[in-house]
Order: sequence, then C-alpha cells, then structure tokens
Amino acid sequence: MTGPAPDEALRAWFLGPRAENADLFERLILESLRDHVFWRRNHHPEDGFTIHESDRRRPGYDDAIARLTEELQGLLAALKRDVPFFSGRYQGHMLGEQTIAAQVAYFAAMLYNPNNVTEEVSPVTTRLELEVAAQLAAMIGYPPDRCWGHLCGGGTIANFEALWIARGVRYLPVALALAARDLGVPLAVRGLDGRQADIRGQSLWTLLNLQSDATLDAYHLLHESAPSSDVVAALDAHSLSAIGYQDYTRRLVEAFGDPLPAGVVLVPATVHYSWEKIVRALGIGAQRMITVPVDGSCRIDPDALWRELTRCAAERTPVLAVVSVCGTTEEAAIDRLDLVVAARERAARELGLTFHLHSDACLGGYAAAVTRAPDGRRLRADEIRSAHGFGWPSQEWLASIEALAQADSITIDPHKLGYIPYPAGALLIRDRRARALVSVDPPYLAPTGDARPQDERFIGRWILEGSKPGAAAAAVWLSHRVIPLDERGYGHIIARTVRGAHRLHAALERNALAPFGTLRFPRPDLNIVNWIVTHPSVTDLGSLNALNDGIHARLSPAANDPAYYITRTRVRPPAYDGAVVPLLAELGVPETEWQREGLVVLRAVVMDPFFGGGPRIPDHVQGLLHALKAAATATLEAL
Amino acid sequence: MTGPAPDEALRAWFLGPRAENADLFERLILESLRDHVFWRRNHHPEDGFTIHESDRRRPGYDDAIARLTEELQGLLAALKRDVPFFSGRYQGHMLGEQTIAAQVAYFAAMLYNPNNVTEEVSPVTTRLELEVAAQLAAMIGYPPDRCWGHLCGGGTIANFEALWIARGVRYLPVALALAARDLGVPLAVRGLDGRQADIRGQSLWTLLNLQSDATLDAYHLLHESAPSSDVVAALDAHSLSAIGYQDYTRRLVEAFGDPLPAGVVLVPATVHYSWEKIVRALGIGAQRMITVPVDGSCRIDPDALWRELTRCAAERTPVLAVVSVCGTTEEAAIDRLDLVVAARERAARELGLTFHLHSDACLGGYAAAVTRAPDGRRLRADEIRSAHGFGWPSQEWLASIEALAQADSITIDPHKLGYIPYPAGALLIRDRRARALVSVDPPYLAPTGDARPQDERFIGRWILEGSKPGAAAAAVWLSHRVIPLDERGYGHIIARTVRGAHRLHAALERNALAPFGTLRFPRPDLNIVNWIVTHPSVTDLGSLNALNDGIHARLSPAANDPAYYITRTRVRPPAYDGAVVPLLAELGVPETEWQREGLVVLRAVVMDPFFGGGPRIPDHVQGLLHALKAAATATLEAL
Repeated sequence: MTGPAPDEALRAWFLGPRAENADLFERLILESLRDHVFWRRNHHPEDGFTIHESDRRRPGYDDAIARLTEELQGLLAALKRDVPFFSGRYQGHMLGEQTIAAQVAYFAAMLYNPNNVTEEVSPVTTRLELEVAAQLAAMIGYPPDRCWGHLCGGGTIANFEALWIARGVRYLPVALALAARDLGVPLAVRGLDGRQADIRGQSLWTLLNLQSDATLDAYHLLHESAPSSDVVAALDAHSLSAIGYQDYTRRLVEAFGDPLPAGVVLVPATVHYSWEKIVRALGIGAQRMITVPVDGSCRIDPDALWRELTRCAAERTPVLAVVSVCGTTEEAAIDRLDLVVAARERAARELGLTFHLHSDACLGGYAAAVTRAPDGRRLRADEIRSAHGFGWPSQEWLASIEALAQADSITIDPHKLGYIPYPAGALLIRDRRARALVSVDPPYLAPTGDARPQDERFIGRWILEGSKPGAAAAAVWLSHRVIPLDERGYGHIIARTVRGAHRLHAALERNALAPFGTLRFPRPDLNIVNWIVTHPSVTDLGSLNALNDGIHARLSPAANDPAYYITRTRVRPPAYDGAVVPLLAELGVPETEWQREGLVVLRAVVMDPFFGGGPRIPDHVQGLLHALKAAATATLEAL
Repeated sequence: MTGPAPDEALRAWFLGPRAENADLFERLILESLRDHVFWRRNHHPEDGFTIHESDRRRPGYDDAIARLTEELQGLLAALKRDVPFFSGRYQGHMLGEQTIAAQVAYFAAMLYNPNNVTEEVSPVTTRLELEVAAQLAAMIGYPPDRCWGHLCGGGTIANFEALWIARGVRYLPVALALAARDLGVPLAVRGLDGRQADIRGQSLWTLLNLQSDATLDAYHLLHESAPSSDVVAALDAHSLSAIGYQDYTRRLVEAFGDPLPAGVVLVPATVHYSWEKIVRALGIGAQRMITVPVDGSCRIDPDALWRELTRCAAERTPVLAVVSVCGTTEEAAIDRLDLVVAARERAARELGLTFHLHSDACLGGYAAAVTRAPDGRRLRADEIRSAHGFGWPSQEWLASIEALAQADSITIDPHKLGYIPYPAGALLIRDRRARALVSVDPPYLAPTGDARPQDERFIGRWILEGSKPGAAAAAVWLSHRVIPLDERGYGHIIARTVRGAHRLHAALERNALAPFGTLRFPRPDLNIVNWIVTHPSVTDLGSLNALNDGIHARLSPAANDPAYYITRTRVRPPAYDGAVVPLLAELGVPETEWQREGLVVLRAVVMDPFFGGGPRIPDHVQGLLHALKAAATATLEAL
C-alpha cells in the first residue's frame, strides 16, 4: 500500500467517542459559518442594513433572544436523554457517529439551504448529488455511460422507486404491442431466445418475459417508427401508469383473453419490513410478495428460489421482480447474488421466464469499497484478506459483491455504512433509459433517457420526491472526497467493523458467559452478530425467550443508563428454518414450540470501527461480555 | 396586543440579509456544539481515550486533516455559486432563509443523529415530532383527541400518504362487506342518508360512497363481531392492499357483476405536478386524475367541480378523493375550501356520492397562524385586518382557512412557510383510525388506531418512510417554541410577506414600467405575484412570450449575477381559462394563439418578511421594478 496508513487517517475521520477531535470540528464549523456570514455581508453591500444595531436594543428583540436562548437550553438538556450512538458501548441498531466531513458539509450547505429538486434552486449541490451517485455506481461496477442514480430520503423511498421502475419496465411490452397494433407499424423485439420477432403477435406471457434491455430497445425503436405525438398517445392509451390498474386489468382480458395470474415479487425471508409497505402502496398487493426461505447463513436459498421460479413458470405467473439483499437488516447477511444471477439466466433458458433483479444493498452497498484498490481496480479475495488480516472475506463473498453490477437496480443508504447524517438514501439503475417510465412528463417524450441538459439537472422530474436537502448531497460528497470509496477509505472502516463483529462472535463461544451458555448464528457476512443466551435451568422455549428478553431489557434504552446497548429480534418459521432448526436441535427444543413462540435472538450491530479493539483502545468486546453476564444473572434471578 | 411587539422580535428570528445576527448565531452554534462535546466527555470517562494525543501527530492523521480542510475549502468556495435566497433581491421560488431556531436546533440534534423511525433510536425527537404535528393540527382546528400527524421528507411524500390512506378508506367497505359475508355476521353501517343498514346487501356504488367515519365505525364493529384472527383473515382475503389491484379488479366483477368505472381523483388545474407522480405510482392512473378548471383568481371553480361530481354520479364513477389546494405553487391561490365542503355535503344529499377530501396546504398551511390569537382563539376577519393594516384578508379567505378543519387530510410543509431547512413536510389526518389502513402490521390488528404506547412511538409503522432525521423534528419544534403559531409569531411573518406581495402587486400597475405595460393576475391570496410585461411594438403572442422569457432569463440564476431574481411559468388552456381569458381580451390576442403557445407569466414569490419595506429597510419593491424595466429594455433591443 502507498500513502498514509488508513488506521492513522481513521483517527481524523470522526469526532471520536470522547470528542477527541473537538478542536478540529469546532474550527471547521466556525470556518463554514463565518465564510457564509461574509458571503452575506458582501452581497450587494449597497443595500445597507435591514436589521440595525438600534433594532437589537428593543425590548421585543431582547425578549425574543431570551426566549430562543432558554428554549435552546431546554432542547440541549432534553437531548441528553438521547442514545450515545457515538460510544463503543452502543452496539444496538444501525447507528453510529457520522464522519466529521459529512457533518460539517451538511451544516455548511444547510446555511444556504439549497433544494435538490432542480438546479435552479441548487446549482452546486445538484451537481454534487449526480457526482456522488456516479461514485457509488463506479464502486459497484455499473457501466458509467449507461447507468444513472440519485440521492433520496432513505432506503424505503429508494426501494419504492426501484420497484416502481421495475413495474413500469415489466409491463411496458404490453403497451408497446398494443400501441404498435394501433399505429399499424411493425415493431421488432428481441426474445429470450435472442431472436427478433414482431411484438404484435406475441402472447401475454411472452411479453411479460422480455428482457429489460430488449424492452427498452423496442421502446426506442417505436419512437422512430411513427410521429412522436402519435406514439405518445398510443402508448398512453395502453400503459399501466396512464390508465391505472383497474382499466389495465380489464384491458388484459380484452386484448389477450387469458389475463394470467397477477404478477408477483419474490423476496428472501430476511427482507426489510418496508417491502410490505411498498407492494401495498404500489397496488401489487402484500399477498403477491412471495417469501423465499433462507439458508443457515440467512442468505436466500438458491434452490428454494429456483423452485419458486419453476412454480411461477408452471402457473404462468409473471415475476415482476426478484429482490436480493446485500446486508440483511437483522443479520447483515449478503445473499449469493451471483447465484441469483445464474438462476435468472437459467430461468430465461429453461423456463422462458425473466424478471427485474433488484439488490437491496441499503446496508451492505458500501462494503463494495473493500473490493476496490485506490486506482479503482477490483481486488482479488486473497488480496483483500491479506490487507485486513482476519481471514475475511471469502471468494463467495467477493462473488456476491461483484454480482451487484448485474442487478437492474441497487439501493444503498449513505446514512448507514456511509456514516452520513440522515437523510441520505440512494437509488442506482443500470440502464438509465428505464427512468423515463416514472418521469412526470408525458413519459414517452424522451425514450432514451437522454434528456436536455436542463432536464438532466431537474432531478425531481425523474424521482418520487420533490424538494429535498442539497445539504445531504454536500455531506455525502465531502465525505467521499475525504474518505475514498476504496480499501483505504470506506473499505478500511467497514473491514474494521466486520473484524469487530467477528471478534465479538468469537468471544461469544459456548462457555464465554458460564454458567450461562451461548448459541450463535454463523459468523456474519458483515457487521451484525446474533446469538442466544442459555442456562441449564431454562429448558422450555418460553423461559428461554424470557431470559433473552430480560437481558435485552437490561441492555437497551428502556433501562436506566445501561452499561451497554444491544438489540434483539424474534425469528419465526418457516422463513428462518435454515438458520434456526440446527440451533433448536442443540437446545433440545421441539420445532412445534418454535412455531408457536418464535425464537428471541440477541443482536449487536457493530458500527464503531474501534470496536474490534487494539493497542490503547478500550476493549468493549470484553466489556459487553461482562455486561451480558451481569444482565443474564439479574434476569435469571427475577424469572 | 400584549407582550413585546412582533416586529421587534422579527429582527431576532433570522440571521438577516447581511448576517446582522451573526454574533447571536455563532454563540448558539458554539453552545450546542460544546454542550454535545462535553456530553461525550462525561459519558463513561473510565473508558479512557480511543484517539490519543500521540495519534494526532501521526503523518496519516495530518494528511487526513489537510485533505479534509482543503476539500472543505473547495466546497465552501463552490457554494458561493449558490443562489442568495436570504436576500431581498431573491423573489424567485418558495425559498428564503430559515429561522435561527430551526438551523441551530437542526445542527444541535444532528450531532446526536437520532432516527425518527422509532423512539428506540430517537427517544427525544420522536416526542418532539408528535408534539409539532399536534401543534399544526391545533392551528388548523382538528379535534385534538381524534386526529394524528407526523413529519416526513416533504410535500410529495405527505400528499402520497394522504391519497394512499384515502384509497384504503374508500375501498375498505368492499372488504368489510365481503368479509362480513364470509364470516356470516351482520354488520351495520351508516349510509349517506344517516340510516343504519347491513353492509352485506349493499351495491358496489353504495359501498364506495360511504362516509369515512361510518366506514371506520363499521371496521371497528366488525372486530367486535368475531374473533380477531378470523376478522383479519377475512379482510385480508378481500382488501386491495393485501390482494393487489389485479385480483381486486377481478374480485369486483365476481362479487358485484357490475364493476363500475375505475375510481377517479378530482384536482384543480393549479395542482402541483407531483400529483401526477402520485396517481401513477399508486396505480390509480394519470388518466383517472380529472382536472377541474379554476376561476379568475386561480381558485378551483365550485360550479365546475359540481358539474364534474354530477357527471361522475351519472356515470357511476367512484370519486376516491377531491384535492383542494391551500396556496397553489404558481399563484399562492387559496381554494374556497368552504365551498368544496358545501359541495361534498350537497353531493351526499343529492347525488348519493361522497369522497375523501384532501387539502394540499403544503404552501399555505402556516397561514392559518394568522387566524389564531395567542390564546388559541380563532380571530375574526376584521380583527385580522386591523392587526395588519392593509385590508387583508377577506371574510371569504378566512372561511377557506377555517374549512381546513373539515378536510379528511391536510399536508403542510414546514420547509416552506415554516422557514425550516429541508427536509420537513407534514401529514395530518382528521381521524387517526384511518392510519391503520396503511400500517405495515397486519392492518387489522388495531382498527381503532389506538396502539400500545410503544407502537405509538414507532412512527415508521404508520408511514411510508422508515429512517428519517430527528434533527428535522427538533428544528420545527424549536422554531415553533420561539415563533408561536399565532398572529404574533408565524402569523406576523406571513402577513408581512403577503403585505410585500400586495405592495409589489400594487406597484406593478399598468404604467409602472412605461414605455412597457404590465398586466397582472388578481391580487394574490398569499405571497405570490404573477404578471406579464407588454410593449406597444409587441403584438403577437409569440413575441410577447419571448419578451417575458427574455426578462426572466436576465433575472434568474442563468444570468451572471442578476440584480434581482424572479421566476416564470407558462399557463395553458383550458385549465387557466378563468384567469387568462380576460387578460387575452386586454391584449387583443386571439384565444387560438394561446391554445397553441401558452402564455408566459412572470412570477415573484415573496418569502422575505422585510420585502414590504418600511422605515430603514431597503426598498426592494422599487429595486425590482427598476431591474424589470432594465431587463425588458435589454430584451426588446435583442428581440
């Protein structure tokens, strides 16, 4: 490696658990503030003052200052009851402290308050937003000249947009076929077998199983076949988003006779709860979201996925999208996306079925930084392992990350492993042409997705949200400038959190809390550790869950100043069969009990890059173990 | 009035166009920062240091600091190319400076970075969020014990949620009727005629025209009629959000024979472009959003609305929702919501038709502060007029604002007239029970909307977004504490912006820019002025539009350091017939030309409370007039 050591730089990236870098932080905040103040002072000084010195001696002014000062004191005092996310003692949710760069940039830009809906009200930060989206896309390996991305409020919105776009692309061939018929023009489209055929004669099943790029090619082609306004009108007459689901559903019956079962979305059992919101809101329906079981490492089970795809093909149920997770919320598991990609290829060949492939990498997306050299080159697994020195990651892990480049869309939350303050989510799409399907303009004006320059910077035209903080873009941008998206920047931080999680995982060996026992989920793909605490006197599942619930209650914000903070989750069959059935066998708990009660699992999310310990760093792994044993002992006494 | 004069306090609420309050601002920022620093220092000091003084002398540390400092300088320099929203010279978009309270509170809370998805990660700011939602609801007059509200990323998300909830409530009776049939239980529901009848025997049209509170009563009642899990399962089998639109549409045919035309949403012609995104995403369809023309003041035309409702009743087209706007984006027009409410009552009586009534008050909602005395009492129109002294508002204006309390849902953006930094939108619903229809839990577990306390503070359970900044809640909260939601707080600010807009409107009289002429839209309901500039030599519409486009180009960020900033819009028939046809007559332009080209209108949004002028305040109204004349002259020469 060249350049300064990342573990030295790491000490400068955060304020620090004891605010060790307070002087630096204060200097940069003051500099940003005064810089802004002098911008105002020097803006048309001939205008003179609006607020005069004498105004600042009026009783009403004084009174307002007093009120502001006192109320702020009240707020600051109240905030002391917040949770110390900055501390190594907090291993609860996906929350840590933010980078200094992000916080200072957020503050600096907030003084200007740009609105990233369009560059007219954010000439600087709209550019920064498009830059950081391009940086994220480069990190995961999207083709820079074809992809597109933007920032948004968070993962739920980003995932919503991804599925909204997917729905638009999957149903587009129906509108294309009917529009081409109305216009009386032939329209060639590439089928799953690679052969071109006229779209007008194709069955509904075939139309709903065209590859996305073939569909978008045909979309483009139709615009060359007839006057643009005619094409727009013809597509509008048949597209789902224009005519609405009710008329669209009726149209399928009229046009194709057999309307097929309603489209489904396949998700792993570990998927975030917000996906249910998304399929409900989009009108796809909660029951049309099919859950695929996970394996013992909480990754989507590729065999189960294949069985589901086979079943869908047999029933002729269109699969709108398959969602794969890179970093599950509960376990930080990384689906074997390379195997999902392989299943998609096999389904196209053997089943005549394809789908939009989305990776929900809200948590794990930044981990791709681990795989990048400073020059952008993709590192080999052995290079990565030797750089970090704790036997991680595996070749399979790397294959999963490399496969992100094959997903049609990816969501990544800078406000998770990017260490950016809320709100900062991101959506990336592989083929920028697809965004036209959700554009607010008549969606068929710019089928290539290549808009005029001013449209390109009118981000609100292409996304769900309107007004949104340019400050968030500035925060992500400055943080990426200071901490690059490679093994020496974010990769270094993230590898350290994984090392910390692995150290905790190792420390939680069976007898670590004797006389209590522990049972662990497998070593995690990223930075989340899951385990349960047992005791010889606790033999039924109800009591075991009560023990673990009690431990959690003593190590959570609900307790009064707990020594450490962890979280817990409750896993249920059949989604977690792969992970839990082996544990039940060890526990001697019948599966029927589990089916009734679920299993309470303790969970630690390691966001703190210092948690793994080292010379002259507080050993919070041991601290947490002591706290766990104390909490377990107190709980057992109270049971 | 009692207490200190609001115009004195106003001088303390903002940093000021020349950063006159920089010393105050800096003091509060430093206090917030140091307060946080010492919180960290005092959190388990026995843990010792993680970053040591000697670490801070390592080359890698130094290098990282240098990089951070230099990159920040680059960002600060780049931000100088941002738009000076703080200046009285900016009268462009809905952007001004933010209150000091909001900016300081945002910064202070961002240091803690709470996540308002649930109180477990935001014990303080989740409470503040619910408090500010209750304050907004009290301001507009919702019943405090029945309503509910929350903050979100902005108006688009808030409006999305409102229509999502509306869709859920409007279609709920279908699920209730079919579930009651399946369960074999009678279920009484109150009809539009006030009489109770069993829901099972009712026609689809009747079911889709039940009043929302009657529907929610029946929802509650069904849960008392059978075991809860049976009710949940029965409703899940028939509810739109569970089974999805495709199966739902088929179900209507099976269950009712006549499925009726697809549901529509009625909106005024002035509605924000994001509504099209919303109906597309929700699957309602862009073509099922019916535009109702506006009158000469850009308010929804009540007669046209009535005609549309009559037509829908005749065709038996269900009306899911009527959207009314309080403060249109382009003109700040306030719909006569009292007349819309009257139309809803009449439609229930005469047409057997009803709907969800939503007020999009993203821009205008805070104007309700003008109508509140400090003790919360609603002021009379003459009291308000005498307090502000410029013949505003009218009795009709007040009636429109008072009618907000009758809307089923309201959206208000604190980041517009609340002067809060992005992102801060808000949704308020009149009947909290309705939120269960979009809850992510099985939506029928808590039909009353009265959740357990921990669910109440798990805001993410009830809304579209997940993670979101607690800092935004702190910002709104502190600003409301310092600047109350009454005539002496926000009411004072907003009345001043309206006074400024009225002063500009008056100054733009026909010959103000001689030899150029001006033609104005009527005096605005709030703070936006629209006008066109004419010239005797410019006789066709194409040239007239070019003249106004040219003026805009010279007074926008596209110009190099323009003296003033305004915006423009292009209005088209038939939506703007009411407002534009009288102007065309004055211009001598045939309507056919307008139909082809639209009319370019210049637009100034007055966010600056000092824009109205006064003693010892720069007169930017005259300044803008001079700039307009100079821009018009230069444009005419170049035409």
